[in-house]
Amino acid sequence: MHDGFGAVSLFLENQPHAATGPLQGLSFAAKDLFDVAGLPTTAGNPDFAERWGLPRRDAWAVAALKQAGAKLIAKTHTHELAYGITGINPHFGTPQNPKVLGGIPGGSSSGSAVAVAAGLVPVALGSDTAGSVRIPASFCGAYAYRPTHGAIPTKGMVPLAPSYDTVGLLAADPELMLRFARVLLADALPVVGFDRAVILRDALELCAPEAQVATLWVASKLESLGIKIEEKSLGLLQEARETQRVLQGAQAWGFHQKWIEEKQPRLGADVRRLLEMASSYSPGEIGRALSEQVRLRSEMGTWLEPGTLVLLPATPSAAPPLADLQETEQALEFRWRTLSLTCYASVLGVPVVTVPAAQPGEKPIGVQLVGAWGSDRGLLELVQQAWE
Amino acid sequence: MHDGFGAVSLFLENQPHAATGPLQGLSFAAKDLFDVAGLPTTAGNPDFAERWGLPRRDAWAVAALKQAGAKLIAKTHTHELAYGITGINPHFGTPQNPKVLGGIPGGSSSGSAVAVAAGLVPVALGSDTAGSVRIPASFCGAYAYRPTHGAIPTKGMVPLAPSYDTVGLLAADPELMLRFARVLLADALPVVGFDRAVILRDALELCAPEAQVATLWVASKLESLGIKIEEKSLGLLQEARETQRVLQGAQAWGFHQKWIEEKQPRLGADVRRLLEMASSYSPGEIGRALSEQVRLRSEMGTWLEPGTLVLLPATPSAAPPLADLQETEQALEFRWRTLSLTCYASVLGVPVVTVPAAQPGEKPIGVQLVGAWGSDRGLLELVQQAWE
Repeated sequence: MHDGFGAVSLFLENQPHAATGPLQGLSFAAKDLFDVAGLPTTAGNPDFAERWGLPRRDAWAVAALKQAGAKLIAKTHTHELAYGITGINPHFGTPQNPKVLGGIPGGSSSGSAVAVAAGLVPVALGSDTAGSVRIPASFCGAYAYRPTHGAIPTKGMVPLAPSYDTVGLLAADPELMLRFARVLLADALPVVGFDRAVILRDALELCAPEAQVATLWVASKLESLGIKIEEKSLGLLQEARETQRVLQGAQAWGFHQKWIEEKQPRLGADVRRLLEMASSYSPGEIGRALSEQVRLRSEMGTWLEPGTLVLLPATPSAAPPLADLQETEQALEFRWRTLSLTCYASVLGVPVVTVPAAQPGEKPIGVQLVGAWGSDRGLLELVQQAWE
Repeated sequence: MHDGFGAVSLFLENQPHAATGPLQGLSFAAKDLFDVAGLPTTAGNPDFAERWGLPRRDAWAVAALKQAGAKLIAKTHTHELAYGITGINPHFGTPQNPKVLGGIPGGSSSGSAVAVAAGLVPVALGSDTAGSVRIPASFCGAYAYRPTHGAIPTKGMVPLAPSYDTVGLLAADPELMLRFARVLLADALPVVGFDRAVILRDALELCAPEAQVATLWVASKLESLGIKIEEKSLGLLQEARETQRVLQGAQAWGFHQKWIEEKQPRLGADVRRLLEMASSYSPGEIGRALSEQVRLRSEMGTWLEPGTLVLLPATPSAAPPLADLQETEQALEFRWRTLSLTCYASVLGVPVVTVPAAQPGEKPIGVQLVGAWGSDRGLLELVQQAWE
């Protein structure tokens, strides 16, 4: 198999799987953040596998897909420690965006998005803490699914910040995404329908025209299905991003602290900077972020009754050129603007499906459909019906 | 009106209330952590009211009860800043336990529990972060209710740690508690029934015989209603307490830091010690507690399906003598042992009703009935039917 875009960290052969099942005949890839029995888990860092030890069993999600008959054929590259949204990896190389020449793939599930967009696999496992399946899906023109927090077990997946970490999917089409998601959503969540979608006006204001047009196109598609469209400002996108920045940082630092202090592993400049920043948060600052999150969940959640969708772009623009993100200032501006769009759902812990929504002939860009807590099945089925 | 037990911080006259409503003809008291328009909120600290400013409106819960026809007749003493479980207050005096001569009232909702137990009011508002209505209810022989986190708005209540803070009730009988709770539970939660109750064996092992006997008595009462009784060890009570200690401390410090650093307010020795400890937590320590909480919620929550109750004592013994808690070491041991029983529900954010369950002629002791998330109404109705 040809991996011309550098998505794969390790090709796999002879991975066992059930002979029959709902995913029979389908192959998949898994971000190198998921354990596969007997193989190193690198998490995109050259020293991590030694710390983590050789996994004796597959991660829960990997095992579930294999038991349903799917064949694991590759592990894919990730932004280092899953702590970044560009997919640029100084240790293992950066997967190329198959749809945008010279454009970043997005991250952290960079290799999984590229593997799907390049046709290597129909579906790939990623993780999503602050947008890590939604962002590369947007840039590479794939579908993505971030589940309700806790709905899919994260066992055997390297943590970044457990209070936001989720097992996500990237897929070439929504019907396959639904089939894979059904296997992973072991507990039967009820299926809710949707009759109302709210476009976040203040999210659009952070975005380039292509992202605005994409969102309105998704809204018109939903309207044609009988869903009522409204437009409103939430007013809390920056607060959600700042809250998650602190609470995610504290957890990431909490997990890596001992390793970094004792082993001085190699770290890329961006990840080192983020972890150093987190190590300097004061207890009062983290405590205030915890309190603020309670307020945000209460205020932001009131819009998200069952039956309501929230629509906003997955990224503020199509994939920027890799060369544009070499300067720290530009990279930081790209980071905060993008996370302003994705942290909304992460802070609420609610499910999101990202759909490709570029105009014909344009670079890919994705739009997020955010549903109420536990509305995963309804959301996935809606997208499957509308986009198939 | 006579307040021989020192429960009241301020008697109120002419507080307006609706002429008719479901609580017509009933009076209530509110812990001095709740705003009452035009009156200082002391939060049990002599310098707090100045910082907080004179409230212009009633706290949400106070207003809701008044609108339902109840008459607010007193504000009640609280453990300083609601940050303690004994009710001992060096600034305003300690309410006396009306049922145990020389025994502590318990806290932090000390005055509300004493006001109810002494017959001053049938129902009183308290707050519950880590047990603050459940503990004094147990020691004073009252009923208490801690709601599902977020089910009753905390607006206008001085925060301790918003991710655990709840508006609670103390009541002389379960029928009145249910009536007050119905007014506060504005959003209609579905009523679920219960068919199974699990006694936490490892909780009983932390307790004196009277607490063990009380729990078994409650279980037998439930069994006579057709509820199946099981006994199991959870194994995570200490972990829950330690996680809440860190995350609660960080939030409390986050809220009070600026005031303490800039104004050097008077603080009791115990509260000063807790806040100083919290101010020294490292970001990694808090981050690890956040991650641990995700694990605990997942593991502890699996027992708490709708339809299941968990039973454990509200306190490890009946009220200890105030004199026994003057030594720091004994006070700390009392604190950690008690919080091992109450943090379970606080970390999960699930509802609890505490019922008095002492043998005839013995000192009061309470037992917690813990229900699944959102099972508040079913829990309150079960207790009302069983204990009326």
